[in-house]
Amino acid sequence: MKLARVGPLGRERPAVVDDEGTRWDLSPVTADIDAGFLAGDGLARARDAPNTVIGPDDTVLIPRRSVKTDYEVELAVVIGQTARYLDSPAAAADVIAGYAISNDVSEREFQLERGGQWDKGKSCETFNPLGPWLVTPDEVEDPQALGLRLWVNGELRQDGDTGNMIFDVAYLVWYLSQFMVLEPGDVVNTGTPAGVAVGANDYAYLQAGDVVELEIDGLGRQRQTVGQA
Amino acid sequence: MKLARVGPLGRERPAVVDDEGTRWDLSPVTADIDAGFLAGDGLARARDAPNTVIGPDDTVLIPRRSVKTDYEVELAVVIGQTARYLDSPAAAADVIAGYAISNDVSEREFQLERGGQWDKGKSCETFNPLGPWLVTPDEVEDPQALGLRLWVNGELRQDGDTGNMIFDVAYLVWYLSQFMVLEPGDVVNTGTPAGVAVGANDYAYLQAGDVVELEIDGLGRQRQTVGQA
Repeated sequence: MKLARVGPLGRERPAVVDDEGTRWDLSPVTADIDAGFLAGDGLARARDAPNTVIGPDDTVLIPRRSVKTDYEVELAVVIGQTARYLDSPAAAADVIAGYAISNDVSEREFQLERGGQWDKGKSCETFNPLGPWLVTPDEVEDPQALGLRLWVNGELRQDGDTGNMIFDVAYLVWYLSQFMVLEPGDVVNTGTPAGVAVGANDYAYLQAGDVVELEIDGLGRQRQTVGQA
Repeated sequence: MKLARVGPLGRERPAVVDDEGTRWDLSPVTADIDAGFLAGDGLARARDAPNTVIGPDDTVLIPRRSVKTDYEVELAVVIGQTARYLDSPAAAADVIAGYAISNDVSEREFQLERGGQWDKGKSCETFNPLGPWLVTPDEVEDPQALGLRLWVNGELRQDGDTGNMIFDVAYLVWYLSQFMVLEPGDVVNTGTPAGVAVGANDYAYLQAGDVVELEIDGLGRQRQTVGQA
């Protein structure tokens, strides 16, 4: 099943997406779907601001005074049940509501050069396009065998596979549950393949006017235009 | 004005506290007071889980496998208005709803030794006792002239003054607003004076059964018993 939120900003309604791509309004039968945000990267996470998570095709804003806004295509794992001290990675399957594409946008100067917490460069407004769907686990045969791709202005920058994740999804969710209580709606970002701008000599950081497109096998496609805050 | 939340866990009601300490139920006239959480320390912040913030006299749980759970008395600044790219530190006054005591409990091994984000050792359940009141700015003559004290089992461990903060409250709120959009209910923790267990030879980390008491001039007093998760 593919779940989505549709409608104008602030007035989104829950919907289910059928195989033809038609979106069926679920608001008469269910409460809204409200995914929070956990920045994971296999190491840690922080629930983030509501103004950080945006839709898959919304505008990403470069913060004022930022010169190093970077992109990261990632598999996002959405939590569906409270998870506290899970017994084993195998138990993670019981608490996963589904999967989505995440662009875990990061400001590298804020993140790495100004000291303090990693988190600082990931909490800026609009920095986490999520979606277009929440795809339930029954439709994702193997979350460790999904191709991830990201383009900037049509140029393929990232072309990876979730099979190359250092820690798999089940391990990550289990591990995080040893530190903190995961709640329904939390989102764990799982790390990104090679090809981001930081550390690369030939890739530029994002600039206003750029178009970023992301794709993960079976999870759909995102397309953001980059603006200036 | 001193605002509080009173009642059993999960069914708290908003209240106002008068000069005699009497708590007047505000639920007939106002919506609930819901403070989130920003871990600040003058460097960064992360909104945290609802299970992290607890009442001033609730039990703090030592996480399983933790051997370095530490305490931090801090002045918490509660945001009352959306703050985005504030023009100057002076503008911070307009967005501050008030002040409270915060025990910014931290697991130093999770935080410092296991790699990754600082945040990881601050997001554990029960790790942020907050309160007993939200004291509005008109009752806090100078937020940079408040004594802060913390005792463990009756022994005074921290005895500082907000006048020694590296960055003052106005600067911190202004600074954070350059990175992220602060929202009403967000809480900025502002850093702690000397006397925490980490780095000290003669102070032990917290253990189950310990009693932690905290006090900030004009903001009341907290008292937590430490338990084991």
